[in-house]
Amino acid sequence: MIGIGKTAFGAFPDRDIRSLAVEAIGNAIGDSSVRPGRIEAFYLGNFAGPSFVGQNHLAPYIGMAAGLSPGIPCTRIEDACASSGSAFFHAWQSVAAGIYDVALVAGVEKMTSQPTPKVTEILAGAGDMSGEGLAGATFPALFAMIARRHMYQYGTTREHLAAVAVKNHANGAKNPLAHMRKVVTLEQVLAGKPIAEPLTLYDCSLVSDGAAALLLAPLDRAHEFTSRFVRVLGVAQTSDHVPLDQKDDITTFGAVRTAGEKAYAMAGLGPRDIELAEVHDCFTIAEIVASEDLDFAAKGDGGPFAAAGCTAINGKIPINTSGGLKSKGHPVGATGVGQICDVVMQLRGDAGERQVARHRTGLAQNLGGSGATCVVTILGVR
Amino acid sequence: MIGIGKTAFGAFPDRDIRSLAVEAIGNAIGDSSVRPGRIEAFYLGNFAGPSFVGQNHLAPYIGMAAGLSPGIPCTRIEDACASSGSAFFHAWQSVAAGIYDVALVAGVEKMTSQPTPKVTEILAGAGDMSGEGLAGATFPALFAMIARRHMYQYGTTREHLAAVAVKNHANGAKNPLAHMRKVVTLEQVLAGKPIAEPLTLYDCSLVSDGAAALLLAPLDRAHEFTSRFVRVLGVAQTSDHVPLDQKDDITTFGAVRTAGEKAYAMAGLGPRDIELAEVHDCFTIAEIVASEDLDFAAKGDGGPFAAAGCTAINGKIPINTSGGLKSKGHPVGATGVGQICDVVMQLRGDAGERQVARHRTGLAQNLGGSGATCVVTILGVR
Repeated sequence: MIGIGKTAFGAFPDRDIRSLAVEAIGNAIGDSSVRPGRIEAFYLGNFAGPSFVGQNHLAPYIGMAAGLSPGIPCTRIEDACASSGSAFFHAWQSVAAGIYDVALVAGVEKMTSQPTPKVTEILAGAGDMSGEGLAGATFPALFAMIARRHMYQYGTTREHLAAVAVKNHANGAKNPLAHMRKVVTLEQVLAGKPIAEPLTLYDCSLVSDGAAALLLAPLDRAHEFTSRFVRVLGVAQTSDHVPLDQKDDITTFGAVRTAGEKAYAMAGLGPRDIELAEVHDCFTIAEIVASEDLDFAAKGDGGPFAAAGCTAINGKIPINTSGGLKSKGHPVGATGVGQICDVVMQLRGDAGERQVARHRTGLAQNLGGSGATCVVTILGVR
Repeated sequence: MIGIGKTAFGAFPDRDIRSLAVEAIGNAIGDSSVRPGRIEAFYLGNFAGPSFVGQNHLAPYIGMAAGLSPGIPCTRIEDACASSGSAFFHAWQSVAAGIYDVALVAGVEKMTSQPTPKVTEILAGAGDMSGEGLAGATFPALFAMIARRHMYQYGTTREHLAAVAVKNHANGAKNPLAHMRKVVTLEQVLAGKPIAEPLTLYDCSLVSDGAAALLLAPLDRAHEFTSRFVRVLGVAQTSDHVPLDQKDDITTFGAVRTAGEKAYAMAGLGPRDIELAEVHDCFTIAEIVASEDLDFAAKGDGGPFAAAGCTAINGKIPINTSGGLKSKGHPVGATGVGQICDVVMQLRGDAGERQVARHRTGLAQNLGGSGATCVVTILGVR
């Protein structure tokens, strides 16, 4: 990875989807010494531009505006909330296979121009609309079911969930690019407006606008562009059934387990070797489940693990030092690449107030829907 | 290419998007001897499932229903009307690079459940909604401008355009999977209801439901699956500006020229070596421009070339023997893979009444929007 770039995440009524993406791409290009004309392929992750802002065909629309050469492939990839994780996976595959010398990956979403009920409906399209959608099961409802089952099976408590929100808000308050830079207390989270019990407002991630981008080059050429490159040590994309009722056990995501196993194997590393992680906390319960599925915590122990501070910036395995989707914001299509950029910042020692002490290896986990797509990426500066 | 499968294209009020895609995939699997469990990656082309039927995250949604293994990457690709051409390009790249032994590509769209004005609005999202869309320039309007300019610059006539419609309807009438199996006369086309002058109803492709799928394997393993495999000789995906007013000359598509040049160079072939082609006739003028941009006809001569019968089944270069988007139908996301399947049928000698005499090499050209994405694929049985 030879360059990264992000916009702030937030609500930007005066910005359109193209300008957000072009800003992030410009920042990534500025972060390396790559001329736009050297970029040989563009992969764009976007979940629902057509539904949120009426614009489709976004890859050449954004690519040409960003100054890329006409004649290169510009491709939009959609895999729900893992859209830009998937875009990254495909770009990495092409560069690793020797097809391209420089590939650009970006993710973008512009969500806040729609009223909340419409946003909820568009997001529901990442689930099974013929079953879950028809039954009125929104995403907060699906993850509330996962939380209830996790509580029943493993004794997870409301306080465990709330501990994740408190930590991520504390981290996001220190992140200048975060959507909501606001510290919250355990009491506030517990007393939050109920959304889908047991989840309150503070258990749910934010509806945001934003973009993120990065540039990839083969390892043996990375030094031509920057001395600060970061290595991709392992990466995997996996799938699973979209409807939650097709899964044997909703307290674990098979796609996350498999992607984690594949990425660890490719990197030749285990969970104990990972020094920080950005995981997909679309809801607080999702972070707890991810910490188990990635083997940072034992199965069922993710709640106490978080509540004990093991995932804090100075904990055993710092998770979501950026503030996570919870506080940094969740512009759906931008989230996967945004997570990777946040890990890169830590690995380079550029995370300011949020910098973790040990930062040689990091992991990003991007989830689509209620677990039907997962991309796990392991990065390192060894 | 070790297997192909299609559904009929048409209006199927009782079929949902998933069942159409699963049928095409089942046909492609049945056409080879591949077990679904051997498929290592799934690339799905779909333009606007979320807008047409409210369902997003379609790749795992369809992939799991088709019996693919959980754990493989399932990725939706969107590049407007070239969505499944692009999906094919990326799948081919992965297999050619040695990453996968068996990859599945499918394309699907379910359009007819929406009323016509809504369909027109959704399609407009493939253009620039902040400019063209705001100005009310629908896709028929954009291609009408291209036609008018082509008439002005090269003397192309209404009769030339109509000749394309007459030929494609004659071909489609012989295609059992075509949406509109109806022969039309030159007089009928010329007297057709005006849509965007000079284009009449008969100059415009159809709004259809349908799906197509195919399976790819490395050349040195193809014989393990079938003796009837078809080779990918050349393939390229290119881009250009989305808004028409960003182009120097709207009577030619730079993305098509470049994709054609790249694909010809990769195949080591020239336009004279191609024995049949499926080109993207979203409007009759688009087929004329494609025949020029791919160098089958001289620049400006595409109209007389078509009117003289050079592109008929028994002509110099048979174009759209399937009936094309015009008569076979244009379920947007399915079109690119559908074209490739139609070329494969000809190369195998399976095209029945539409079979061309010489069929060793064929070309498919898939266009996105008003030329911002193009995928050209050259196939052969040499």
